[in-house]
Amino acid sequence: MRQTNLGLVTDLYQLTMAAGYLATGKQHETATFELFFRKLPKYRHFVVACGLQQAVEYLLNLRFDGNEIDYLRALPVFSHVDPGFFEMLREFRFTGDVFSVREGTPVFAGEPFLTVHAPLIEAQIPETYLLATVAFQSMIATKAARVAEAAAGRACFEFGSRRAHSPEAGVLAARAAYIGGCAGTSNVEAGYRYGIPVFGTGAHSWVLSFESETEAFRAQQKLLGENTTYLIDSYDTLEGARKAIALGGPMSGVRLDSGNLTELAPAVRQMLDKAGYVNARIMASGELNEYKILELVAGGVPIDAFGVGTDLSTSSDSPTLGAVYKMVELESAGKVRMTAKFSGGKATLPGAKQVFRYPDHDLVGLAHECFNDAQEALLRPVVLNGNLVEPLPSAAEARDYAAAAIRALPAPCRTVFEREAVWQVKYSRELLAAFEDVKAARGQR
Amino acid sequence: MRQTNLGLVTDLYQLTMAAGYLATGKQHETATFELFFRKLPKYRHFVVACGLQQAVEYLLNLRFDGNEIDYLRALPVFSHVDPGFFEMLREFRFTGDVFSVREGTPVFAGEPFLTVHAPLIEAQIPETYLLATVAFQSMIATKAARVAEAAAGRACFEFGSRRAHSPEAGVLAARAAYIGGCAGTSNVEAGYRYGIPVFGTGAHSWVLSFESETEAFRAQQKLLGENTTYLIDSYDTLEGARKAIALGGPMSGVRLDSGNLTELAPAVRQMLDKAGYVNARIMASGELNEYKILELVAGGVPIDAFGVGTDLSTSSDSPTLGAVYKMVELESAGKVRMTAKFSGGKATLPGAKQVFRYPDHDLVGLAHECFNDAQEALLRPVVLNGNLVEPLPSAAEARDYAAAAIRALPAPCRTVFEREAVWQVKYSRELLAAFEDVKAARGQR
Repeated sequence: MRQTNLGLVTDLYQLTMAAGYLATGKQHETATFELFFRKLPKYRHFVVACGLQQAVEYLLNLRFDGNEIDYLRALPVFSHVDPGFFEMLREFRFTGDVFSVREGTPVFAGEPFLTVHAPLIEAQIPETYLLATVAFQSMIATKAARVAEAAAGRACFEFGSRRAHSPEAGVLAARAAYIGGCAGTSNVEAGYRYGIPVFGTGAHSWVLSFESETEAFRAQQKLLGENTTYLIDSYDTLEGARKAIALGGPMSGVRLDSGNLTELAPAVRQMLDKAGYVNARIMASGELNEYKILELVAGGVPIDAFGVGTDLSTSSDSPTLGAVYKMVELESAGKVRMTAKFSGGKATLPGAKQVFRYPDHDLVGLAHECFNDAQEALLRPVVLNGNLVEPLPSAAEARDYAAAAIRALPAPCRTVFEREAVWQVKYSRELLAAFEDVKAARGQR
Repeated sequence: MRQTNLGLVTDLYQLTMAAGYLATGKQHETATFELFFRKLPKYRHFVVACGLQQAVEYLLNLRFDGNEIDYLRALPVFSHVDPGFFEMLREFRFTGDVFSVREGTPVFAGEPFLTVHAPLIEAQIPETYLLATVAFQSMIATKAARVAEAAAGRACFEFGSRRAHSPEAGVLAARAAYIGGCAGTSNVEAGYRYGIPVFGTGAHSWVLSFESETEAFRAQQKLLGENTTYLIDSYDTLEGARKAIALGGPMSGVRLDSGNLTELAPAVRQMLDKAGYVNARIMASGELNEYKILELVAGGVPIDAFGVGTDLSTSSDSPTLGAVYKMVELESAGKVRMTAKFSGGKATLPGAKQVFRYPDHDLVGLAHECFNDAQEALLRPVVLNGNLVEPLPSAAEARDYAAAAIRALPAPCRTVFEREAVWQVKYSRELLAAFEDVKAARGQR
């Protein structure tokens, strides 16, 4: 496993463009790019912005080493490119500014939540990486917020690492799920890296590795004592519950991973209570998601905690966020030119922006505009001239922030089902006028 | 970015089980685990096995360092665990065997395509990582095979890194897409690491960064010469085509990223031909997938190459494969015990297995069985006693193997639409008898 310098983790055209910007003397121009999504994913009424820490770590560590540069130099597409480009890559550092909403902030379609202001080349190359890390984590944090909403106070744990899109995606999904509202994860690396609570029970292979279920349970209890959560469905769930109870001694609880939870959980609860295990928790897992949890909670099924895997760690009902990263402004020798795209269905609004939050809507204006009646201007400086402004919040701090911010949204925003839009994103008159100006200016060329 | 030792990239219960296996003297038992999926994903009639290289690299590099071990030691769940466990982790090495189908082999539901035979602890801990890397890459390679099938000989390029589930997922998706049948990728890191052809065109931000589209095109041509592919839809596609042609000079082709391809592509083709650019390629991109490509190809729309992003790199219509890793055999002091799971809908067949391929079906038998009339026994030794048996195939070799193996499948297997199962997976009499034996033996306990 080589330690990457991250410079090559981008699309080829970002690098050919960088070469072109250098060749045309545009390397001294300063660009503003904004990261946003055009529409909310299916059933989602907000998105939890997430991945800021990884975005910033990437920008501050972005380098190209000699081997990587030699690789590029040998590509046919660079055959006409001036060697000065490769010299530039050798010295490459991100020296620009990053503005972002706080990690954990609920955001909406059509408003920037991360802005990069940097020399054109430095702002262009990061597009691919920034989108992949911010959009992915935001998507998972959003899914986790839905799962937590459905669980209505019961603890939810992220269990989906094995189904994530690569092991590293599993680690980052665990982080995002925690920020979105999960109580913890089974992913140990995520616990180690980000200080996220880790949680585990027993596995089927553990039970199968012993001659009998009772023997497996006894060994687990001896090992973990009061931390023991028995997995009781390897053979027959009620029989498994009976064996766990018959052992006596301490237990934290039991986990049900298959079968009809609506029937099994009450039966197991009754067995536990009757045996005096009134504090033993029943955890459910197995193809759960916010819809199934909502049903179980509504039905009063006695489940104390949920383990959510595949559907959470891949956001399987809406597995992409569709975020984009668009140039909105370009400054050359002190002269600012706003830019916009007009291609079919993909138009973008020009100019560096600020997002002003009100109790029931957002107002997007140009960055220099001021709306004193707003609760908050969401985009804050995170990196200035290539330096971190202040330490980034921990995952736990981002989680707390998200929880409070989501609670503050109007209740209809938090439904897990389809409904008409709740939250309006409005645009300032000045911003809309700028769009018309850019359009008109283009028409004249 | 810390370089991980990978040991913690697993679910917590794998490590508590490992501690339990040590505590109960089971660390000397040798287990066989099999990786497979229970049913084919929606519309898929085969899955392209992929990710073998990353699975093997992981196993051969799996370590725990001092800091990681200190972290584990401090977790409450390990509070009763004997310190000998942490000593064991310090010395941890994978010393077992891995059997696998060749990377690129089409596989089917209910048959193992990767088998780990190792001391129980060494076989248990890797579950999470192996599933996350093999299932993910197999899912993407399968999607790519569908895209390539739909394109019927036209080149397809993987362009979806920005929508992948994390930047590293983007790199691995590029690798898997290439093995599955794509001609290359825009992901430069994937090109660097795995020798995959990289490809790029122009971007909207490039066009927007110049005062006019013509100026942007001129600069691109000067930079890339005959390698220039103009992105012509930033403002108006036909107008863009006109400007690219008016420049004169060399070009590789043009890319259309929005609008109605069925109308625009023929119009652009006509303009190019009329101007003498008969060899200029038209590339299409923008929310493409196998279904849309099939339609474009069937309609005779003059598109020479496809750039496929989001839907490919996330397999968005079926974003999880649902692979599992199950213990099927446990050997203790020379005595082999077969294991199986019986829980609702999740039963597993016991015993280490071999998969025998026939022209129109597979036969799964126990590993010691022999079927001389089969074309091939698919599971081959890859790692023995912790050592690689022979160098792993390159991505290009795996791609060639996949292409030939997919071509050899019955034609109905290759349709991209829903249809009844084509390929039968049968089980040997001896294997089915073993299942009944395990079931009966369990009944007696």
